[in-house]
Amino acid sequence: MGRLGIHSFVWTGGQTQDGLERALEKSAEHGYRTIEFAYLRPELFDLDRLAQKAQALDVEIGVTMGLPRDKDVSSTDPDAVKAGKQMLADAVHAVRDIGGNKLGGILYSAHTKYDRQPTPEGWKNSIDAIAETAEIAQAANVDLVLEVVNRFETNLLNTTAQGLKFIEDTGSDHVRLHLDTFHMNIEEANPAGAIRLAGDKLGYFHIGESNRGYLGDGTIPFDRVFDALLDIDYQRDIVFESFSTAVVDESLSLACAIWRDTWTDNDPLAAHAKEFIELKMAEAERRRATNSRP
Amino acid sequence: MGRLGIHSFVWTGGQTQDGLERALEKSAEHGYRTIEFAYLRPELFDLDRLAQKAQALDVEIGVTMGLPRDKDVSSTDPDAVKAGKQMLADAVHAVRDIGGNKLGGILYSAHTKYDRQPTPEGWKNSIDAIAETAEIAQAANVDLVLEVVNRFETNLLNTTAQGLKFIEDTGSDHVRLHLDTFHMNIEEANPAGAIRLAGDKLGYFHIGESNRGYLGDGTIPFDRVFDALLDIDYQRDIVFESFSTAVVDESLSLACAIWRDTWTDNDPLAAHAKEFIELKMAEAERRRATNSRP
Amino acid sequence: MGRLGIHSFVWTGGQTQDGLERALEKSAEHGYRTIEFAYLRPELFDLDRLAQKAQALDVEIGVTMGLPRDKDVSSTDPDAVKAGKQMLADAVHAVRDIGGNKLGGILYSAHTKYDRQPTPEGWKNSIDAIAETAEIAQAANVDLVLEVVNRFETNLLNTTAQGLKFIEDTGSDHVRLHLDTFHMNIEEANPAGAIRLAGDKLGYFHIGESNRGYLGDGTIPFDRVFDALLDIDYQRDIVFESFSTAVVDESLSLACAIWRDTWTDNDPLAAHAKEFIELKMAEAERRRATNSRP
Amino acid sequence: MGRLGIHSFVWTGGQTQDGLERALEKSAEHGYRTIEFAYLRPELFDLDRLAQKAQALDVEIGVTMGLPRDKDVSSTDPDAVKAGKQMLADAVHAVRDIGGNKLGGILYSAHTKYDRQPTPEGWKNSIDAIAETAEIAQAANVDLVLEVVNRFETNLLNTTAQGLKFIEDTGSDHVRLHLDTFHMNIEEANPAGAIRLAGDKLGYFHIGESNRGYLGDGTIPFDRVFDALLDIDYQRDIVFESFSTAVVDESLSLACAIWRDTWTDNDPLAAHAKEFIELKMAEAERRRATNSRP
Repeated sequence: MGRLGIHSFVWTGGQTQDGLERALEKSAEHGYRTIEFAYLRPELFDLDRLAQKAQALDVEIGVTMGLPRDKDVSSTDPDAVKAGKQMLADAVHAVRDIGGNKLGGILYSAHTKYDRQPTPEGWKNSIDAIAETAEIAQAANVDLVLEVVNRFETNLLNTTAQGLKFIEDTGSDHVRLHLDTFHMNIEEANPAGAIRLAGDKLGYFHIGESNRGYLGDGTIPFDRVFDALLDIDYQRDIVFESFSTAVVDESLSLACAIWRDTWTDNDPLAAHAKEFIELKMAEAERRRATNSRP
Repeated sequence: MGRLGIHSFVWTGGQTQDGLERALEKSAEHGYRTIEFAYLRPELFDLDRLAQKAQALDVEIGVTMGLPRDKDVSSTDPDAVKAGKQMLADAVHAVRDIGGNKLGGILYSAHTKYDRQPTPEGWKNSIDAIAETAEIAQAANVDLVLEVVNRFETNLLNTTAQGLKFIEDTGSDHVRLHLDTFHMNIEEANPAGAIRLAGDKLGYFHIGESNRGYLGDGTIPFDRVFDALLDIDYQRDIVFESFSTAVVDESLSLACAIWRDTWTDNDPLAAHAKEFIELKMAEAERRRATNSRP
Repeated sequence: MGRLGIHSFVWTGGQTQDGLERALEKSAEHGYRTIEFAYLRPELFDLDRLAQKAQALDVEIGVTMGLPRDKDVSSTDPDAVKAGKQMLADAVHAVRDIGGNKLGGILYSAHTKYDRQPTPEGWKNSIDAIAETAEIAQAANVDLVLEVVNRFETNLLNTTAQGLKFIEDTGSDHVRLHLDTFHMNIEEANPAGAIRLAGDKLGYFHIGESNRGYLGDGTIPFDRVFDALLDIDYQRDIVFESFSTAVVDESLSLACAIWRDTWTDNDPLAAHAKEFIELKMAEAERRRATNSRP
Repeated sequence: MGRLGIHSFVWTGGQTQDGLERALEKSAEHGYRTIEFAYLRPELFDLDRLAQKAQALDVEIGVTMGLPRDKDVSSTDPDAVKAGKQMLADAVHAVRDIGGNKLGGILYSAHTKYDRQPTPEGWKNSIDAIAETAEIAQAANVDLVLEVVNRFETNLLNTTAQGLKFIEDTGSDHVRLHLDTFHMNIEEANPAGAIRLAGDKLGYFHIGESNRGYLGDGTIPFDRVFDALLDIDYQRDIVFESFSTAVVDESLSLACAIWRDTWTDNDPLAAHAKEFIELKMAEAERRRATNSRP
């Protein structure tokens, strides 16, 4: 695998410059080599300073986001689509300015529990928006990855197969998928098979438990996940994600429906996740070696 | 186990008397001995006729529902709570009038993706409402079961442990839990353990796949589920639930976020579910016998 | 998959012509389209009559066997090796004469719990014997498949990777592997991965439970097995195997260490196995379709 | 759980005093608090010195063994039974003399691949022998635990249910079961269910992978194993066992059919096993807490 990272919301609600800087420090301290930030409004934060701190700590930055409903590029309202495209372009530039390497998340629709079915026109609007954004991202040297999420957080891309069709429709080589074990556990008939289906189109990977808490504290058979990542020779980043009401970005907490504390203390959570992922990855590598050694 | 049943939405969107009667017939034809209806407004349907048809076919009727937001008994708005209590009382009476044996579902809150955290006052209001409803249900000889659902469909009862605490707080012996494999797959750290934790408080059980489609077409380890149902000597009903856009109750489809067809033809779906559940139950019984035979 | 079959020892200890004919009839009656016989000594049975009966019933015949210790081609004793080669050649011809399509099993060593480590010289002797047998089999139009079994039944080929190396060393295109879920459960680090590793070299497949009893009455995650068979587009035969003391070939019972009855009545066992395998295969096909449909 | 231990054969073939002392040191160095020795012939080793070293290192000693065929207490040959009883009595005393706390393993039969079915008379002989040994052990303050093993290593006790019946037949309160994940993976219809069935009669527990190599390098679902150990509130010792040809006791290697190296370097194996078991146990405890917290 590539770098092992952690979502900044393990450390901070992300409201302050200090919070973000501390998140960078804590991530590095725990041995994570990449961090995921939510979209940072450039007017509120000193992006340069974050970029320098990340570089000094040798921690790469990725940014993820979901569009708000009034900037939904999968809408049939031209104003919303236009506003969404502008937000995506701004986000790409913010990633570039913070020295980040990727923009991911629910870029192709709102991050919301929809109350309407998706439409062919909305799909087309979204395709166009992502195709345009891909060109901007490529020029800015920022990777673009689309997160496939469960039905309660978008109505457009719930499965890997839908994501691959979407990418094909954009006609762009610069768009890849961002898969997440929490979402796959709800939507994919066979999560490991979905990873193999994605193959080289997998650009970013989230490790999260079925209840969004501690790894191992749920139902996801991670052995099969790591086996599949090895099957496709996945070399890009793997990032741990867990949410609790103990650390809150209120808007994300509501979008993700975080009503329970699965943890309150982030240090042992982060230490456990790193140990868990590294142990599981080592075990998967050993299984593959054992399986193939005569 | 008790009777094996099927949700009426496999057969019909539930808008017409004819649709419901046909659902009864199809269920019986496939060998199911109980059916689950969504709340039926008495003014729109001939409940007597449904009751007679069900009796003639030897199919029991259960009814499930979720409260609408303006009748949310977990609200802090007294008007909503009052309206919710009335709706629950009406529902109990409708179940009685249709000759049904139970009322279940999300009776303790709205069936919605909440955009606020639950509150202690709302919990108390909900406790009071369910305690009152339990008395009415007991008098009407209708079982009352509370469905524990995933975070995107309520903010109040997402786990079995929360459900058990809720029941304890009502002080009523007449309230039991309604568990569902689809929801448990998202929320429980150990679904089989949760079933054992519920024990005799388990009053109703939904079998649904992780993607709400065909059984086996997802990630749920059903062997462990059936082992656990035997561990607690579960003798009440088991009902199969699957949703597709092919058969639509629009409001439930939106509440449950059904954007994809996992099937279009309901006959083979129903036939497969029955074969699957009966085979799995027989295997679990054989495992238990094999395990305990010297 | 190709034909679905059943081992004759579900029906008969295999000591009499009548027993074998009845096994053919019972297999056909249950809808199995292939049967597996243990090696039949041509002097004791009317092979022609078996061939005609099989053809009339449209049931194909495969034959499996394990070498006895005094005919062990992996021995360093030239006499044993020579006797083993002769037995293999005779077996190929018996398969041809009975109208069978394949010879499988532990053809490369004795079927025994060894009390010595394998040796490089024994490996070479076995390679030579199988290479010679492959030529005879090819000329006789009989497929040759080597069963990879657990450590207690041979010391030579316990894993798929060892089997593939062995085939490579024979230099023959006519030799394939015969894998078995019972054995893989003990030996393979990742059984599904081993099936994918075998790929087109998989020539025959045994479905057996971890305790050699009813399918589902053990620990094998069959969903992953069927997913893997689809991953490699396996089109050859799948045969169900289960042993009990209720039906006995004494020598096989001892070699396989069958001390317990996991069943006594073979009809429901055979009916269940067919339903189980067909349901699982259909579910795996549905999972693959669901996973890949946008 | 009680103490976490390791089998001495990870460190040494057990032929020399030096080897055993080094095994004690390595176990302690890795943080294991108990060690398992194979039966030590008192005339060949300085048991006092081992006892003192173990005490100094705060490492407890358990001893396991399997009877040889000529001392098989499940035999119908009175001489063999008599010799077996003597060997068991000697072993109890050796455990006492080495300062050990338990005698386990295949004490009730030979440790061999049998070539005959078990007999009622042999069962009775074995019951008598273990009942007598239990009295000796109780007087010597040594726990007595019977290892339930797979069909290829005994023909008498292959399942927990058989073991419980055996204990019942002895009429002794001093005999408990010694279960092992490697063996359960082959024999139990539901290993976690078998642990729950054993309950307080579980006296000793072996953690071993399905291929006897690194934990995680096989098919055993350890999460369910640890959940079950918590379900029965298991507080006795857990010992890791793995065999490779790299460290050899020849007789055990042959009895256990160790033909392949699943590892060659014991230090990383032991370190990994400890990390794996402690992580899994912590995760199981967290699952239980999460499951039961409202």
